Amino acid sequence: MADNSKTEDTASESLEAAKNASNKKEKLADQVMQNPQVLAALQERLDNTSVTPSSYIETFPKAVIRRIDALKKLQVKCAHIEAKFYEEVHDLERKYAALYQPLFDKRREFINGEAEPTDAEAEWHSENEDEEKLAGELKNAVVIDEKAEEANVKGIPDFWFTIFRNVDMLSELVQEYDEPILKHLQDIKVKFSEPGQPMSFSLEFHFGPNDYFSNSVLTKTYKMKSEPDKTDPFSFEGPEIVDCEGCTIDWKKGKNVTVKTIKKKQKHKGRGTVRTITKQVPNDSFFNFFSPIKVSGDGESLDEDSEFTLAADFEIGHFFRERIVPRAVLYFTGEAIEDDDNFEEDEEGEEEELEGEEEGEEEEDAETDPKKESSQPAECKQQ
Amino acid sequence: MADNSKTEDTASESLEAAKNASNKKEKLADQVMQNPQVLAALQERLDNTSVTPSSYIETFPKAVIRRIDALKKLQVKCAHIEAKFYEEVHDLERKYAALYQPLFDKRREFINGEAEPTDAEAEWHSENEDEEKLAGELKNAVVIDEKAEEANVKGIPDFWFTIFRNVDMLSELVQEYDEPILKHLQDIKVKFSEPGQPMSFSLEFHFGPNDYFSNSVLTKTYKMKSEPDKTDPFSFEGPEIVDCEGCTIDWKKGKNVTVKTIKKKQKHKGRGTVRTITKQVPNDSFFNFFSPIKVSGDGESLDEDSEFTLAADFEIGHFFRERIVPRAVLYFTGEAIEDDDNFEEDEEGEEEELEGEEEGEEEEDAETDPKKESSQPAECKQQ
Repeated sequence: MADNSKTEDTASESLEAAKNASNKKEKLADQVMQNPQVLAALQERLDNTSVTPSSYIETFPKAVIRRIDALKKLQVKCAHIEAKFYEEVHDLERKYAALYQPLFDKRREFINGEAEPTDAEAEWHSENEDEEKLAGELKNAVVIDEKAEEANVKGIPDFWFTIFRNVDMLSELVQEYDEPILKHLQDIKVKFSEPGQPMSFSLEFHFGPNDYFSNSVLTKTYKMKSEPDKTDPFSFEGPEIVDCEGCTIDWKKGKNVTVKTIKKKQKHKGRGTVRTITKQVPNDSFFNFFSPIKVSGDGESLDEDSEFTLAADFEIGHFFRERIVPRAVLYFTGEAIEDDDNFEEDEEGEEEELEGEEEGEEEEDAETDPKKESSQPAECKQQ
Repeated sequence: MADNSKTEDTASESLEAAKNASNKKEKLADQVMQNPQVLAALQERLDNTSVTPSSYIETFPKAVIRRIDALKKLQVKCAHIEAKFYEEVHDLERKYAALYQPLFDKRREFINGEAEPTDAEAEWHSENEDEEKLAGELKNAVVIDEKAEEANVKGIPDFWFTIFRNVDMLSELVQEYDEPILKHLQDIKVKFSEPGQPMSFSLEFHFGPNDYFSNSVLTKTYKMKSEPDKTDPFSFEGPEIVDCEGCTIDWKKGKNVTVKTIKKKQKHKGRGTVRTITKQVPNDSFFNFFSPIKVSGDGESLDEDSEFTLAADFEIGHFFRERIVPRAVLYFTGEAIEDDDNFEEDEEGEEEELEGEEEGEEEEDAETDPKKESSQPAECKQQ
């Protein structure tokens, strides 16, 4: 920028113009608010002027707008490179899934009593004094019922079921009559699509033999898409879950908790006689997770409720994959739940907590606590 | 879980115990609130019992706690594998930085008038009707001053400076006297550490020749750490920025905006004569970004203010790297700013916007808008 004075002029002129533009907008907005009929018609126009920076641009000469267009075109190319990047990240995740698996297999064995940890495997030296202390207390606390229980307890009772109870997102879905079924849940696995296949992952829920259904595994598969939207390439933020598929649950007779039978009276038009018929209607249950709404081709033709339900389903699938399966024990003990709430270790945090204002106050903390802030710049984090 | 009845008993007993435990805690909490002196002493104890799930565990037999410890030990191993994963993601980012660079170089040329886009390069067909319309309006809008300006305007005037003005996080730092300096900013580059080197990235701010300092490039380097904290391995969420380094700005005489000269009156103790001395004191300026606070070894010994300042600095560095440099044109036009505010395209969104309730209302949208929700499960996103 050799011609400095020039650009400064341009800038100040532009600012002036931007001010005028936004004044115009306010007037327009008032009219619109008074005349809802024209609202829809004016929306599009407003979309593009309601943000000051865009109106700032209106003041540039054609040649400059042409250069900005060229930059936008480069930006679309960047988005497509970014998509490829995320595909390679997915390949990396597939590679690492194989590295985690042996640890997850051990976990399964300890949970279900298939194997007992060796002293080396069970040796837990927390660097955290508090935990040491707690551990001590625990050991004393249990000495009493130890003899009684020791022999009978296999693995870690209700491990996965306890996680369902500890995680709000899941406990909201679990009905009382789901609980005895979930007690048979022995493992949850994440399986990635094969290399070269379309990007997707499956959640496998492994159940022990039970009186409710004959499946040993219930699966939910999430299809992902890692490519910029043609109509809005700049909104690309990485792979998205775009669809999901459940599985058929082979319920044993009279055990299907996803339906309930209701009685209905029917009157015969002619004779006027009344008969009672029974019909089955859908019933709230976690196990509806395995028969999700179908996404239409473009995803547009779903009504808002369905779209919301589907979005919630996607979020749950993502949460199983990114948090619960990789960190199950921390959701069992509650440690991960502290983290998810930005649980603060500083005194302030606890005082607030004693006041029983955890949530709100902690969110405030989250904004002002450097530790939390400085942990933000992780390169690759899930939301 | 063959012995089902058994586990159900265990569960209900445990729940009972958990209830009792949390009652105890409330009583304890009351005492503490009445007697602040004992607060500190009790904090540690409370840390570990304040979350119901943990107290749930206190009721398990020793053998079960032993298995849970084994799971925790496995979890630490997972955290270390995860750290390796993020290192490989960093390598991927380095690889892709090389793929983006040619596009960023073109961008720099168009911005600074080193090159003019060809018709093919400038051909911007928006799929979005509104934009088409706007584009049309823009072209008309500028026809007037076109002839006058066309010849004089080089590249895209004030491109980077405009981004500083559009992005709140940056405009907050920019003082009036910083503005003429920032108008000389010609490019911002992100450089990653070499393979095998400790994980870090540098921001390079490239300036044109100017009257303020002789540097052509100002750099800020952020050091990252991708390894679980020994004292708290479960909190590991990926690489963190742990330290940063600025650079020396070779200010030209009397041009250093990061200091100001103040006059001070001094009274001579003996004679009582008064003399006026001048001294230099720090001055608010964006350019203080290049002389950040030093992190101490453990990062603990900083006072809260410094920690907060540092955390904010880390966040800005992260934002330059993850958002501004990769998507500069969208921050110039404001499109990315819409996105960052979860700008909604649906009518609802705009009505609220007309009411000038953008922020709040949009945040509500963010919770209830499926598009936004379903875009959450991106595999690799920045916060």
